[in-house]
Amino acid sequence: MYFPEVKKTIQFEGRKSKNPLAFKYYDENKVIMGKTMKEHLRFAIAYWHTLKGTGADMFGGSTVWNRPWNKYEKPLDAAKAAMEAAFEFFDKLGVAFWCFHDIDIAPAGKDFSESCKNLETMVKQAKALQKKTGVKLLWGTTNAFSNPRFTHGAATNPDAHAFAYAAAQVKHALDATQELGGQNYVFWGGREGYETLLNTDYKHEQEQLARFFHMAVDYKKKIGFKGSFLIEPKPKEPTKHQYDFDSATVLNFLRANNLMEYFKLNIEANHATLAGHTFEHELTVASEAGHLGSIDANTGDPNLGWDTDQFPTSFYTATYASLVVLKQGGIAPGGINFDAKLRRGSCDLNDLFYAHIGGMDTFARGLETAAKIIEDNVLDNFVAQRYSSYSKGIGKKIMSGKSSFEECEKFIIEKGEPTLVSGRQEFLENIINDYIINA
Amino acid sequence: MYFPEVKKTIQFEGRKSKNPLAFKYYDENKVIMGKTMKEHLRFAIAYWHTLKGTGADMFGGSTVWNRPWNKYEKPLDAAKAAMEAAFEFFDKLGVAFWCFHDIDIAPAGKDFSESCKNLETMVKQAKALQKKTGVKLLWGTTNAFSNPRFTHGAATNPDAHAFAYAAAQVKHALDATQELGGQNYVFWGGREGYETLLNTDYKHEQEQLARFFHMAVDYKKKIGFKGSFLIEPKPKEPTKHQYDFDSATVLNFLRANNLMEYFKLNIEANHATLAGHTFEHELTVASEAGHLGSIDANTGDPNLGWDTDQFPTSFYTATYASLVVLKQGGIAPGGINFDAKLRRGSCDLNDLFYAHIGGMDTFARGLETAAKIIEDNVLDNFVAQRYSSYSKGIGKKIMSGKSSFEECEKFIIEKGEPTLVSGRQEFLENIINDYIINA
Amino acid sequence: MYFPEVKKTIQFEGRKSKNPLAFKYYDENKVIMGKTMKEHLRFAIAYWHTLKGTGADMFGGSTVWNRPWNKYEKPLDAAKAAMEAAFEFFDKLGVAFWCFHDIDIAPAGKDFSESCKNLETMVKQAKALQKKTGVKLLWGTTNAFSNPRFTHGAATNPDAHAFAYAAAQVKHALDATQELGGQNYVFWGGREGYETLLNTDYKHEQEQLARFFHMAVDYKKKIGFKGSFLIEPKPKEPTKHQYDFDSATVLNFLRANNLMEYFKLNIEANHATLAGHTFEHELTVASEAGHLGSIDANTGDPNLGWDTDQFPTSFYTATYASLVVLKQGGIAPGGINFDAKLRRGSCDLNDLFYAHIGGMDTFARGLETAAKIIEDNVLDNFVAQRYSSYSKGIGKKIMSGKSSFEECEKFIIEKGEPTLVSGRQEFLENIINDYIINA
Amino acid sequence: MYFPEVKKTIQFEGRKSKNPLAFKYYDENKVIMGKTMKEHLRFAIAYWHTLKGTGADMFGGSTVWNRPWNKYEKPLDAAKAAMEAAFEFFDKLGVAFWCFHDIDIAPAGKDFSESCKNLETMVKQAKALQKKTGVKLLWGTTNAFSNPRFTHGAATNPDAHAFAYAAAQVKHALDATQELGGQNYVFWGGREGYETLLNTDYKHEQEQLARFFHMAVDYKKKIGFKGSFLIEPKPKEPTKHQYDFDSATVLNFLRANNLMEYFKLNIEANHATLAGHTFEHELTVASEAGHLGSIDANTGDPNLGWDTDQFPTSFYTATYASLVVLKQGGIAPGGINFDAKLRRGSCDLNDLFYAHIGGMDTFARGLETAAKIIEDNVLDNFVAQRYSSYSKGIGKKIMSGKSSFEECEKFIIEKGEPTLVSGRQEFLENIINDYIINA
Repeated sequence: MYFPEVKKTIQFEGRKSKNPLAFKYYDENKVIMGKTMKEHLRFAIAYWHTLKGTGADMFGGSTVWNRPWNKYEKPLDAAKAAMEAAFEFFDKLGVAFWCFHDIDIAPAGKDFSESCKNLETMVKQAKALQKKTGVKLLWGTTNAFSNPRFTHGAATNPDAHAFAYAAAQVKHALDATQELGGQNYVFWGGREGYETLLNTDYKHEQEQLARFFHMAVDYKKKIGFKGSFLIEPKPKEPTKHQYDFDSATVLNFLRANNLMEYFKLNIEANHATLAGHTFEHELTVASEAGHLGSIDANTGDPNLGWDTDQFPTSFYTATYASLVVLKQGGIAPGGINFDAKLRRGSCDLNDLFYAHIGGMDTFARGLETAAKIIEDNVLDNFVAQRYSSYSKGIGKKIMSGKSSFEECEKFIIEKGEPTLVSGRQEFLENIINDYIINA
Repeated sequence: MYFPEVKKTIQFEGRKSKNPLAFKYYDENKVIMGKTMKEHLRFAIAYWHTLKGTGADMFGGSTVWNRPWNKYEKPLDAAKAAMEAAFEFFDKLGVAFWCFHDIDIAPAGKDFSESCKNLETMVKQAKALQKKTGVKLLWGTTNAFSNPRFTHGAATNPDAHAFAYAAAQVKHALDATQELGGQNYVFWGGREGYETLLNTDYKHEQEQLARFFHMAVDYKKKIGFKGSFLIEPKPKEPTKHQYDFDSATVLNFLRANNLMEYFKLNIEANHATLAGHTFEHELTVASEAGHLGSIDANTGDPNLGWDTDQFPTSFYTATYASLVVLKQGGIAPGGINFDAKLRRGSCDLNDLFYAHIGGMDTFARGLETAAKIIEDNVLDNFVAQRYSSYSKGIGKKIMSGKSSFEECEKFIIEKGEPTLVSGRQEFLENIINDYIINA
Repeated sequence: MYFPEVKKTIQFEGRKSKNPLAFKYYDENKVIMGKTMKEHLRFAIAYWHTLKGTGADMFGGSTVWNRPWNKYEKPLDAAKAAMEAAFEFFDKLGVAFWCFHDIDIAPAGKDFSESCKNLETMVKQAKALQKKTGVKLLWGTTNAFSNPRFTHGAATNPDAHAFAYAAAQVKHALDATQELGGQNYVFWGGREGYETLLNTDYKHEQEQLARFFHMAVDYKKKIGFKGSFLIEPKPKEPTKHQYDFDSATVLNFLRANNLMEYFKLNIEANHATLAGHTFEHELTVASEAGHLGSIDANTGDPNLGWDTDQFPTSFYTATYASLVVLKQGGIAPGGINFDAKLRRGSCDLNDLFYAHIGGMDTFARGLETAAKIIEDNVLDNFVAQRYSSYSKGIGKKIMSGKSSFEECEKFIIEKGEPTLVSGRQEFLENIINDYIINA
Repeated sequence: MYFPEVKKTIQFEGRKSKNPLAFKYYDENKVIMGKTMKEHLRFAIAYWHTLKGTGADMFGGSTVWNRPWNKYEKPLDAAKAAMEAAFEFFDKLGVAFWCFHDIDIAPAGKDFSESCKNLETMVKQAKALQKKTGVKLLWGTTNAFSNPRFTHGAATNPDAHAFAYAAAQVKHALDATQELGGQNYVFWGGREGYETLLNTDYKHEQEQLARFFHMAVDYKKKIGFKGSFLIEPKPKEPTKHQYDFDSATVLNFLRANNLMEYFKLNIEANHATLAGHTFEHELTVASEAGHLGSIDANTGDPNLGWDTDQFPTSFYTATYASLVVLKQGGIAPGGINFDAKLRRGSCDLNDLFYAHIGGMDTFARGLETAAKIIEDNVLDNFVAQRYSSYSKGIGKKIMSGKSSFEECEKFIIEKGEPTLVSGRQEFLENIINDYIINA
């Protein structure tokens, strides 16, 4: 047992509970707009941060080197211990899903083949633990950015040899994901970007990336993988300019390369703000295009210019995000992944529980709040009224695609000036505040 | 005569000249890579800033209210005086092009029809002055963002009446542009964006915008306007989120709405950096998609988060921009517009000359520098070598679109690890510095 | 009557009220930690934004030109009408204080003397209205930044003539503030900064600024003004670099120039975030130095790089700010001013009420929440425990100022490594969330 | 020999040279304003980045693990090899100075005492190599931020035990610096800051920091160390808020704690821009207070929000920085340190030479350019004229500290409005461009 201080699965105790190891809002069986909270929220744990995170940053080493599952000397033994610990944690937290990169769960071997064998070994163990606990795989992915071979990119590497390596690696990660019944597969292009245009053939790299994705689609079809393919936008870091900058950039890339039907987006809150957007903006852009597939809920710090990957704690952010998700009818087969890491100074095992409980409660509360706003129709009615001129007269004509500049001119000469109507931003912000507390 | 201190057209005197009213680099007849500087650079003056700019900002009023062309009481008289002054300035500066918004050149009338009549009056005068001076119109545009009627947008206004007003207004601005032989027409969506998603139907507004553009295309065809349609991206300001955020966002919008063939992009340096990109990034994204149509050369301040619209003075920026433009074979029928304003404290008439001379010299020098880099093949050779693995073996196969994950895996099992090769960023940056001084 | 739709003073109706023209949290007589909400919060209305705001921005003109008090043609008549409207608004909103710049309330005359006379006229009216309504003056100030004469600064102007003008103007604004019983006087250096170091004598300008402040202190003593002098930090805008960048910068300036005893700070949330800090950081820096004098509660947008001056609506921000204020024993004789403006699109009179009600409720709720946190001792106990090693052994010695590097070395050789203890950030953030909802 | 490809010391070959392993501008014996370039520039190499840098970032491991001096298994052997390589590099590059942290040069032992012994061993070797090569120590420092014991700070740690550890460590680093004849000692507070105010006693931490510095001053006096003490400001990273945010913040801290006479500042370009300032701003603030002690020349990327530590390549930045340094009469006993690291992809040994050569040439050129500007008096004359009103009449009176608001008022009533004079920013920027190319 790796988490002896937490004896059993974290319980819902309600908002007045003072127990830091209990949920205040996340009541998995509570029904909201026809579905249970568990069905809505589909929380997932990020194996890399939660099990393999070290507390290290660019200015200092690990603060959590003494995690009990790290005591084994042989890499495979340590990997197996981590997997045991992982499912104990998932189970005690009471989440339904987990996520992983290939290299999180399996140690590198002496060559590619041995690495693949290690992965297979670990997948076997994971499969057994999934069965035992009922925890499912939300998504798998490949880490094709940490190894120095990917310094100049994986699919966009100027060296075809590195491209081939990434392809071979994704093949196995896809196999592993399928074997584990993964409901999605994520592509985050950690090194797909550039450091300087001086040494970069931008067009070539874009095309390579598209070819890589087409090869992935071919392989997906071949093996009959039924999960969704997801691309995760990020604007910068580690490279100066990441090719998957934001939702609109990825959608443009997909459209330009005939990939729209094969990929959806996995939107991360922290990546949205690094791109100069709000989280809800990025969710909206993806959702309105029919391409919002899944969510990484971790947030950043508006004063810091890098990926801080903090656990979400803002009721505002969770409410705004939930509004988008509820309006598109839910996030399944995607979910809400915590790609979040403990602060470097939060070095205790229990901090893992506090942090995840806080994140889950925040989104549970956000869901409740958003659902109440939707059920009460407060925003929707306002918006419908605001755009109502498009359902009659010249507005209706415009909407039909059959109007013209000449017709509009004629209308203006007849009717003169439009009337300015208040957009009521402050009024609407007050309403959100009412629901934040009262929902 | 409005600029009596400048007696005749600004002359090229070479880099050693100490005359602040002479060009050091811009020698309009100097031939670079087969074209004269004048043909390459196609400089244009922005009527709004240069003639109508007031020096005002959010915290204070006009510092240049005493411009000699502002002394007339009647709006049309003042407009005519400004037009005289404008062409005197264009002529004395020796530029080939100008740009305008409808409301820059013509005062608002008591209603729409009178405003249109005023515009026609002013177009007549402008046409005569164009003929007299040989100065041409690079582009015309509509100001559909300053008037309160456009507070909530023009094409994306929730009120169809305001949409119709914008349509009618663009119709006349297009007529004016055609009458003046404009080589392009620009759409900058000054209020096409949102302040808060709480009161916004994002999808509806995107669709309205597309409909508006289709109506513009219809009208363009109808009147036989041969110039290019250009969209100018900007990420924020005045609205919190502008729909034309950056190049990729606009390209995505065009693709999604079957507008790719009708629009190119007008890229502004200051807007690029506000979006978190370099200027050369935005130029590259547009150019690689075949959609770089024209340039606004004004720059911002990396420490300030708003559009400062400064005259360009960085040889680096001008060189990087020129590299992109030269590689796509030039910017025509677009040009290099100075959408730049004097600092609030630069209140003298001569400051207008100093500022434009500095901007023109900066880009002339950037052109020379970039041309030398291209002619010496220093970057291109490096890049070609860097990507050479794609012209043989597995690389060639990947490029052909006929490889697969399985083939790549087989290759890796055989060949093992790729070799990491230096990207030589510092080496290449040193080369740029050599050319900055020595070109 | 200028606000006929609001018949009487806004009432407290409690958090379940659905009336947008009622307070949900601000119950002026509710006692929190021994004082009423009214005594704690000391809300003030900013005359400039609320009465004189036009809705204009850099890209467009006024959206609220038709305010009923703007219908008068003669400047003094319009000024008097605005003053009537102001006090009707203060009274109907139920706030205790107001703030003004000299030029907000009195129109410019044909010369300095006439401007002063206009100010005196308006002060007389204000005094009578203060008496009638019981509303008091939180602070007065001078606008020495809008007029073109201050383009290059007021106290820091390279031209001594402009310096003298600013001095003369502040003299009268101080007289007016004293006449109205103002409890503070604020200095915001709107143009005290630089645009480029190329034309700036930084040292000279710093010294001028100090001299100006010493002259202000002399005059304050002379007239027996008992209110506090406050400096309001801001990092940028309108100038590229404002001299009063942030709390630490102003404190450094005060210390360097023997001004510490005469000035406190007026901290604005929006200015804090523009400087790259949180609001609570700036409040803490000022408060720990004993120099937190007053607050401007308006916030910005983390995605926008300019002063958006929005009404505060975040319960988090209000709670964090209230924690600092409660710990220093309150903000009096300062207060909480709303230097906030309606969004451009919020063009109705009632939007003024919605916006201020929202801001007041947000801070009332923040006060309740912070008070509960303090009363429950949740954070304070944690922090006391965290630093407890300084009350014994080597820690106590260090605190006494009598330890040395040699002694510390001896201690380490004996005791070896310290133990890393969790900082519990996530745990503490969850506690804040508990109080946000449950307080 | 660790750098066999570079046979001998890099030579000056002049600006037309195409040899990437030669200086184009740095001619160490060239005399500028009475001193040689070597005397002016006092370049130093950062041991940590240049010898111990790994190419790793938050998303990936070392790309340069195969540096020849890393092949030894035993830590002390590897440390000695690195020291040999270091002085070979310093010598071949032809720089006069180096800088180090204690843990860069000496491996950690099993306990504090053994670590100290290792440091002494390495200092002996360094001393011998200094003697052999003539290379001197610009500054030493302590790394009290990487080890997990300093997670919550060194001098500002909530645990007195960790404070004591830092004190003991600095003691030995100071001893080492003195033994090596170091001309300065730098304090960069890598973990002196906070992550969240929720768990932080801000006032206590500020006071601890001051106590620590006073203990350092005591120890300095005791051992008779004659070098300067320098504090290096940085606003953020690794902590959310670093206490030494910028120049003004550090000066405020020094003044508040009676430390002004003991410390100067080491200003880093990258840290300046992270704080929202230009490099020249931070240099100016420090210099005008008489506290500019030394420089870290490495720059960041305006689009990235973290410390990229790039080699400086901008002629503009180098010119602006040199203007400040020349005006204060030089940087000695400080120097220009390259706290710069190769881009992750620049994995070759030669990239170390290219990068440092580029940085040195950039600053050599900046020095030449700034000297020419000063010798020609172009800016100084302009500025002197601009402020000339303070040397006569009311201006002179104001400067004397003997004027008053009343006197200023009298002056204004007599003289009326000041005249607005252009600040000529664009004109001055053009002049800088002239010198950039022609100097």
